Amino acid sequence: MKTMTEPSKSSGASPPGTKVPAPTYEGDFVLNENLLLDCGRTLATPTLHYAVYGRLNAARDNAVLVCHALTGSALVGSWWPEIFAPGAVLSLERDFVICINLLGSCYGSTRPGAVDPATGEVYGPDFPLVSIQDNVRAQARLLDSLGVRRLRLVLGGSIGGMQALDWAIHFADRVQRALIIGVAPLSAMGLALNHLQRQAIQHDPDWAGGHYLPQRPPRRGLSLARQIGMISYKSAALLEERFSRNPNRNGEDPWALEVREGAAGGGLIGGRFDIAGYLDHQGQRFIDRFDANSYLAIMRTMDTWDPQHGFSSSQETFSRIRAKLSFIGISSDWLFPAESVRAFAETIRAAGVQVDYREMTSDHGHDAFLAEQVELVRLLQ
Amino acid sequence: MKTMTEPSKSSGASPPGTKVPAPTYEGDFVLNENLLLDCGRTLATPTLHYAVYGRLNAARDNAVLVCHALTGSALVGSWWPEIFAPGAVLSLERDFVICINLLGSCYGSTRPGAVDPATGEVYGPDFPLVSIQDNVRAQARLLDSLGVRRLRLVLGGSIGGMQALDWAIHFADRVQRALIIGVAPLSAMGLALNHLQRQAIQHDPDWAGGHYLPQRPPRRGLSLARQIGMISYKSAALLEERFSRNPNRNGEDPWALEVREGAAGGGLIGGRFDIAGYLDHQGQRFIDRFDANSYLAIMRTMDTWDPQHGFSSSQETFSRIRAKLSFIGISSDWLFPAESVRAFAETIRAAGVQVDYREMTSDHGHDAFLAEQVELVRLLQ
Repeated sequence: MKTMTEPSKSSGASPPGTKVPAPTYEGDFVLNENLLLDCGRTLATPTLHYAVYGRLNAARDNAVLVCHALTGSALVGSWWPEIFAPGAVLSLERDFVICINLLGSCYGSTRPGAVDPATGEVYGPDFPLVSIQDNVRAQARLLDSLGVRRLRLVLGGSIGGMQALDWAIHFADRVQRALIIGVAPLSAMGLALNHLQRQAIQHDPDWAGGHYLPQRPPRRGLSLARQIGMISYKSAALLEERFSRNPNRNGEDPWALEVREGAAGGGLIGGRFDIAGYLDHQGQRFIDRFDANSYLAIMRTMDTWDPQHGFSSSQETFSRIRAKLSFIGISSDWLFPAESVRAFAETIRAAGVQVDYREMTSDHGHDAFLAEQVELVRLLQ
Repeated sequence: MKTMTEPSKSSGASPPGTKVPAPTYEGDFVLNENLLLDCGRTLATPTLHYAVYGRLNAARDNAVLVCHALTGSALVGSWWPEIFAPGAVLSLERDFVICINLLGSCYGSTRPGAVDPATGEVYGPDFPLVSIQDNVRAQARLLDSLGVRRLRLVLGGSIGGMQALDWAIHFADRVQRALIIGVAPLSAMGLALNHLQRQAIQHDPDWAGGHYLPQRPPRRGLSLARQIGMISYKSAALLEERFSRNPNRNGEDPWALEVREGAAGGGLIGGRFDIAGYLDHQGQRFIDRFDANSYLAIMRTMDTWDPQHGFSSSQETFSRIRAKLSFIGISSDWLFPAESVRAFAETIRAAGVQVDYREMTSDHGHDAFLAEQVELVRLLQ
């Protein structure tokens, strides 16, 4: 399985004309030992694919770690360019920015589609549960190799924020500040949405118990999973504004006598509404860039993240934090509602941590941290 | 395909001890002519399965029509028993209550699993688009046969409310009052949710283009569709209160080393959270009681409902209404948000119709009109 290094074609497209910074270096880091995972299994000498922007200064005090979300890549300059705009959050002149692909992701790190060095076989659906904390431990080894001891900032949205917080908890002496956007432990609704997506993939006729052929992946299932995800990343208000009850812009008529959709196997299911055409398009784009087993692996990483799991109290979990934390909730986010992010921030503050909370007003839903980067930067300034 | 006359096992279970009224009569009405549908096709001599409760009085002024929702049945006494409680909304002594199974539903009316009298073949996926208005026209013929000219009240929640409003629009001289609960034309988010459910069914390996064998229906797809529906019928707050991030109550461990789920075809997908166990259970219950092609047919009926479609203005659509309308929004409904129901009611009021709007405060989401019947009755009194 080839390493994909194309920029993430996520919905977080930057405004036209935005300058996309090029990485100083992009490559692989291989741990020279096995990574013992929280679940009890090991990943043999795992690879972390990463990109860096700018240069580490002599004082080694300008390092920033950006953590990507579910289907992002190490190329943060491509999916979060406005963060690098002049006067924004990061500076290629001032900062040494590192972004590391999640274990399990199909964008270059050790993943279900890779060969397990311990067995010589492709992991496939037997790829183990890799926790956020496992990722953070591996990332720390990569930073060691780069000569980075201390991070002036670690930041990310969604699963990226999960990593940022775990950095502050588990490497308290290495993090000065953490910026955590649009995230709290997944709620029952969030766990439900992931459960639906998992089934969508595993019901695909080409799923083959996860041992699908590379040339015949479970495309329809992965497309449906992405579409389920998409509605949770957007607000109802945004969908209403963009699509309302309009018929599909390609001319299909939902009230039509009959339309056979070949791809769906036939039946008089009628012309689509515009929102359906949009979702199908998003699903189609996604199956061209992502792998089903990778998607399942990272969803499980996301599901199981709860920093308090295994600790006796929130005090015990969070009181070790030394970094200053900033949380950002998004007003229209229904996957990680702003009130949950605020409550989570309050829990951590109650453990004696320096925490502030800000709210991003946007009708874009969870996606706002990618879709409204200019607004995000304004809030951070 | 046998006619199923079991009471609907929908989530609208009544409180323990609630008396379930028995119908005075339950049976089939067959139109003695073809029903010309809005889509241009015809249903040859369609059957309407129905139930009645109480008796028509001599003045023939005590008839009430109850319209059921997506997967309901004609047995309104079974799924809405609190409406019949002493002093509640309906009275078996005072009222003659009629409930008619939707065309397309697998609970007795003409449906995809039935034989088309015009061809001698099972409709299957070629069952035509039957609009809400088509249903209402057929229902009017059934009421004619019962000697019911005028309805003192027509009421329903969700798709039931769509029918109630279409009654008031298209049979203005036959309706005295209409009670419309938790409904407005589906928003983009609602259309999206139905589009996801449709795909879930049509991606099932046993879908067979809709020509699945009765003994081998697309079970997993229908289960997933129901689960997608379920999350839209419940509020996030309710799911959080009930399930939170608890592991599945059967003892599965989401952090476990490995669990193979046989039904899903294998893979290390881990133990489930409680919300996932609940959704799987709901899906399983549903596939034992509902038909996939019926589900698709009624979703399309729902999608395409917009009383203003084909009219030049809301004034033209609604000014013909003579009935007094009452709309009820549900505070935590995110499928048909209360603010949309209120705005819809305002649009109709602006056309000169007598309209009132009330809001039901509940954390049950869209399902509240079934799940919190006692609260609903209190609001209506």
